[in-house]
Amino acid sequence: MGKTVIEKILSKKSNVDVNAKDIVIANLDLVMAQDGNAPLAINMLREQFGTNQVFDSNKVVLVIDHCGPAPNQGAANLQQIMRSFAAEANIKLFDSGEGVSHVLLPEQGWVKPGDFIIGSDSHTVTYGALNCLGTGMGSTDITVGMYTGQAWVRVPESIKVNLTGIMPDYASAKDLVLALVKKVGVSGATNMCLEIAGDGLQSLNMDHRFTICNMAIEMGGKCAIMPVDDICRQYLYERTGESFDGIWSDDHAEYVAEYTIDLATLEPMVALPHNLENIVPLKEVEGQPINICFLGTCTNGRLSDMKAAAQILKGKKVHPNIRLNITPGSREVYKKSLELGYIEIFIDAGAVITPPGCGACIGTHLGIPGDSEYVLSTANRNFKGRMGNAKAYIILGSPETIAATAVQGYLAANPVLGKESIIL
Amino acid sequence: MGKTVIEKILSKKSNVDVNAKDIVIANLDLVMAQDGNAPLAINMLREQFGTNQVFDSNKVVLVIDHCGPAPNQGAANLQQIMRSFAAEANIKLFDSGEGVSHVLLPEQGWVKPGDFIIGSDSHTVTYGALNCLGTGMGSTDITVGMYTGQAWVRVPESIKVNLTGIMPDYASAKDLVLALVKKVGVSGATNMCLEIAGDGLQSLNMDHRFTICNMAIEMGGKCAIMPVDDICRQYLYERTGESFDGIWSDDHAEYVAEYTIDLATLEPMVALPHNLENIVPLKEVEGQPINICFLGTCTNGRLSDMKAAAQILKGKKVHPNIRLNITPGSREVYKKSLELGYIEIFIDAGAVITPPGCGACIGTHLGIPGDSEYVLSTANRNFKGRMGNAKAYIILGSPETIAATAVQGYLAANPVLGKESIIL
Repeated sequence: MGKTVIEKILSKKSNVDVNAKDIVIANLDLVMAQDGNAPLAINMLREQFGTNQVFDSNKVVLVIDHCGPAPNQGAANLQQIMRSFAAEANIKLFDSGEGVSHVLLPEQGWVKPGDFIIGSDSHTVTYGALNCLGTGMGSTDITVGMYTGQAWVRVPESIKVNLTGIMPDYASAKDLVLALVKKVGVSGATNMCLEIAGDGLQSLNMDHRFTICNMAIEMGGKCAIMPVDDICRQYLYERTGESFDGIWSDDHAEYVAEYTIDLATLEPMVALPHNLENIVPLKEVEGQPINICFLGTCTNGRLSDMKAAAQILKGKKVHPNIRLNITPGSREVYKKSLELGYIEIFIDAGAVITPPGCGACIGTHLGIPGDSEYVLSTANRNFKGRMGNAKAYIILGSPETIAATAVQGYLAANPVLGKESIIL
Repeated sequence: MGKTVIEKILSKKSNVDVNAKDIVIANLDLVMAQDGNAPLAINMLREQFGTNQVFDSNKVVLVIDHCGPAPNQGAANLQQIMRSFAAEANIKLFDSGEGVSHVLLPEQGWVKPGDFIIGSDSHTVTYGALNCLGTGMGSTDITVGMYTGQAWVRVPESIKVNLTGIMPDYASAKDLVLALVKKVGVSGATNMCLEIAGDGLQSLNMDHRFTICNMAIEMGGKCAIMPVDDICRQYLYERTGESFDGIWSDDHAEYVAEYTIDLATLEPMVALPHNLENIVPLKEVEGQPINICFLGTCTNGRLSDMKAAAQILKGKKVHPNIRLNITPGSREVYKKSLELGYIEIFIDAGAVITPPGCGACIGTHLGIPGDSEYVLSTANRNFKGRMGNAKAYIILGSPETIAATAVQGYLAANPVLGKESIIL
């Protein structure tokens, strides 16, 4: 039997020839902690290990994204712990407003093929789009990782996802991953690696690929991984100045399941309240009134997402029944959106631009829905209470669907569908 | 004896020949309520008066500025009360992100010379820059105003403020009003009208004048008022399409006090923690370390303020010890700041742009300081706890001082002072 890419990465990182289901201790290339739990990890490091130093100051990074700029005294004080620790340990801190960790770290060149990266956030799986093992861990494992430079992990079995065909104009990477979640199920990949490849990748830029890998955890996945191709190589070169060949599975590697998605068959999809078991084609629920449209998050807060929305919103006005909140995923996304005129399009349309961060997605601030309100969001989770109000309803969709809906006033398809009902 | 402008306005609005100290019931031209207490007023109107209609649907306006976009479920639900009421009463609602009421209403043409305007916010005094009586009232008086179109008021005595001379480049309207507060005292104008005029007005545009009138309440003032001159007339014409002559005091009107400020003598001023009795020239405290710089609010969130900061920040970087939060005062200010390149300058410098609203100034969200942190803010109040943390220290200063300090890393003067210590 051949080896899967994840077996190869963990063999290299543990200096042991490992196979799926083995439990190994492996060397880390990067440990990320965000403000939701970094203070816990820092306090544990100080109290249990008696130090404020990390194993390698170039391999630990802190990001204030969950609650920035601080919405209350408690959050402000927790962020102070991160700032003082970053100074003492001489590590990089991305402060409030720099961006969502999972947008920032790839774009700032912190993520490379073959890496083993842990983050104190479940959507660390996003990084797999750059051909590495990124996975989320709790603050205890993060603390140990910061101190030892290692983490224990059960080598995941792999599921193969073949992407074929070319995406039609009216569908998007978000629709693709919602279709994948529907197919695999919310626990269909529990503790496994989703190995996503195929010719279909050619029509997906890196932003699209991050969107897809980001939601691996919504199927229970330990991680996702994609190969290095020219699109990925170019992205990495721009971000790191290095050229990577990447690493991939052997032809005869073993998979616990295989799925194929023909991109040509995709259509706009939405996840209805209150979980990702309720994914349906948008056309089945068009017309649902919506109160808040939210574009952003680690799933869809990148430049391609801003572009997709801007193309639809250009010259249009947000419907009076809708509040449209847009959160560029990072300072770079904000800056490029400025340069390309997207921010002006959003402002002219009546959108509210909030500073880069997680904010509304996790219900900490910046757009909490009221009771009984319906939110259409580009985020990855629509659990009851996810956005800070258990009496609200969250529907997930693509940036295109959010933009079309914001103009229309109710759940509506991307206007390139050309439906007569969509008068934009 | 002649009459003061405030006596004239209230005589007209009450149809009685009134003098200072009289108590009158006067007709209202506008009633404004913001989300901090509009829900109280709305509920009172519904419960006590049994209606959800107002005396004149063109003369009542609601603004969601104190907590927008909603930082929590409670705020979100209170805002829903405002939205449903606005729809039922057929009145204008400015929703989250449209701007701070006191920036929005003048710029959107809701404020006119001779008007009697009450708002559920103490900084309603800002509107006096447009030659009207604007004053803050509590939710009970606001409710009665919404229902009857009238409010009772004690006719204020007047204090005359003569502005003379021309402002030097290194001082600003904020320095002027801080100097005025220092001179008059924090209760020196209690329940009085500050009548502000003189040749010095010629070097103050409308943005500057709003900054000055905004802080009348910090001297205890019932209101401030300025005359209609060409600068004011032009502003009003652009906003309302109408031309106004305005109304002014008779030559022999009676004043309880007179103050003169020669603009040529002004220098950068700051108000030190924890109140406005601690106003000193900036030069006395230069070098004080600062953690957060905050540019925005109803005092200094207008285009001229953005411009002043942008001129200093252009091509510079925010010091790593500082977080610089910038809140354009309204959608229009944001939009013009985009067009003029200020937003790009701010983003390039490392500032965080938060959506138009009151936010950090009143401690509801979007930049609450941590314990022991020092904030340098363009707001109007530095009371203990004002920004949501009673263990933080707030210093007030001009947009120029905020920008210079953000670059320098400690309390620093506007670089046009040319001091060698300010290496920008």
